[in-house]
Amino acid sequence: MNSFDLIIIGSGPAGLSAAIYAARAELNFAVFDRSAVPGGQVQSTYEVDNYPGIPGVSGPELSEKMRAHCDKLGVNFITEDIVNITRENDLFTVTTSDNNNYTARAVIAATGASHRKLECPGEEELAGMGVSYCATCDGAFFRKRKCAVVGGGDVAFEDAIYLSKLARVVYLIHRRDGYRAAPTLVSQAKAVENIEFITDTVVKSINGSDMVESLTLSNVKTGETSNLEVDGIFIATGIIPVNVLFGKLADCDESGYIKADENCETSCPGLFVAGDLRTKQLRQIVTAAADGANAVTSAIRFLG
Amino acid sequence: MNSFDLIIIGSGPAGLSAAIYAARAELNFAVFDRSAVPGGQVQSTYEVDNYPGIPGVSGPELSEKMRAHCDKLGVNFITEDIVNITRENDLFTVTTSDNNNYTARAVIAATGASHRKLECPGEEELAGMGVSYCATCDGAFFRKRKCAVVGGGDVAFEDAIYLSKLARVVYLIHRRDGYRAAPTLVSQAKAVENIEFITDTVVKSINGSDMVESLTLSNVKTGETSNLEVDGIFIATGIIPVNVLFGKLADCDESGYIKADENCETSCPGLFVAGDLRTKQLRQIVTAAADGANAVTSAIRFLG
Repeated sequence: MNSFDLIIIGSGPAGLSAAIYAARAELNFAVFDRSAVPGGQVQSTYEVDNYPGIPGVSGPELSEKMRAHCDKLGVNFITEDIVNITRENDLFTVTTSDNNNYTARAVIAATGASHRKLECPGEEELAGMGVSYCATCDGAFFRKRKCAVVGGGDVAFEDAIYLSKLARVVYLIHRRDGYRAAPTLVSQAKAVENIEFITDTVVKSINGSDMVESLTLSNVKTGETSNLEVDGIFIATGIIPVNVLFGKLADCDESGYIKADENCETSCPGLFVAGDLRTKQLRQIVTAAADGANAVTSAIRFLG
Repeated sequence: MNSFDLIIIGSGPAGLSAAIYAARAELNFAVFDRSAVPGGQVQSTYEVDNYPGIPGVSGPELSEKMRAHCDKLGVNFITEDIVNITRENDLFTVTTSDNNNYTARAVIAATGASHRKLECPGEEELAGMGVSYCATCDGAFFRKRKCAVVGGGDVAFEDAIYLSKLARVVYLIHRRDGYRAAPTLVSQAKAVENIEFITDTVVKSINGSDMVESLTLSNVKTGETSNLEVDGIFIATGIIPVNVLFGKLADCDESGYIKADENCETSCPGLFVAGDLRTKQLRQIVTAAADGANAVTSAIRFLG
């Protein structure tokens, strides 16, 4: 059956939480995700310690728990890549790369956000050859080797701490000399012997023929350029909203986040947005999960 | 030490989540609760099946998991009953029934809300055994069964409509023959085949040995008594925000909820509100937990 009351797009914490609430409300719905492995960004998080009730869990393990929760409730997952969404006569039509069409009166957008790129020479050419956006995924390749982490937020510090247990040395490169990471993470990292802090510095290029061999760095205060030999670089400079399917349907802010308050209602009737993709103060697993619940509540009210 | 940066009042999901976030941010803080047993309303919930990642858990067990999470992070709990809060020169002073004073620059109010009771025989004895105060929470347990909703406001009608999709039949019992619910909700409910309306009627007792089996009803106009077989009763006669400590510090809506959006900021600088006590669409464990995270984030920004 290709016709639903509700289609949920994305299977991170927001999408999975929405699925749990939709299942318990016995809506006729499906969850779409291009990957059979659920979890969004959580999937590539080494350790999650701030989802209340489940301390010290790995990202994949937490995803698996939420997915198992959905499976227990009989949620219908469709593993197809959505390429287009249109809305006509109060009905959304979702088209997948398999050329299948699915319709629904309501849609919850929960595609989250993706990693920000450095946009410097070598980044694209050496992706997967020493350039990585996921320490949990790729850290093991750098055992006893030298690597850099770029960024100043929680993820950069988490990555540096994780990598310090594997790599010989970890350079934490940040364009400023202050960090927006949690103080507890900063002091934790400062206590690690093989993490070296390089501040006020940006990466101008990533160099190497087949594999990353070095970085060209530039000090933003002095303008001085230097060379740093590394075997790998982990880019943890932030995230960008994955709004490509929805940008034409609903109003976004200047960063591309879909505008919505906690009720998850967008400017487009019937389109709701949950999780990292919407405008909000705090992008966390628990706030994404709360959005899933709120989005379904708003969708139920909309469906009448 | 009786002086903190932050005092969190209440140890339901909102308070405990706030504690987890405050601990990870290495704030100087304490959590106050009059009871040594944490959990708020969750504590008296028979089964929680909509907290993402922890399916089919009892309320006390979920509370215990959140409390253990806090303990692992070394959270300071103070089991004293707060009788007064004042604010002078940007400093809050909290006074307890033990006549102790504690000060803090920021306070998170997380004392929640309590359900209005019917105050009839059987209500307390069968709580969690067919007597429920939350259709979204417990509706799924009444699939294909018969249940009653008591009340005449928006929540009673939303509950009845929600339950009508799950239960075989829903009796909506109200003590008057007019409703204060929104007319659109009333007409929506009237269009549903398996909702039956019982007006001018009150519940005299809830009957059953281990589980709810029937209700004794009384018609307030004729005085006639009748018996109604049901498997569950949802009491939707209202909830009462526990605002007694904060009502004089911050603006409340007409029902007594402290006015705040998802950032949890109140009209009183330094006072934040998390969980059921604030104005919001959906009062759930996961939305309370999200509030805890947001309230701490806002408090950290306030503390500077």
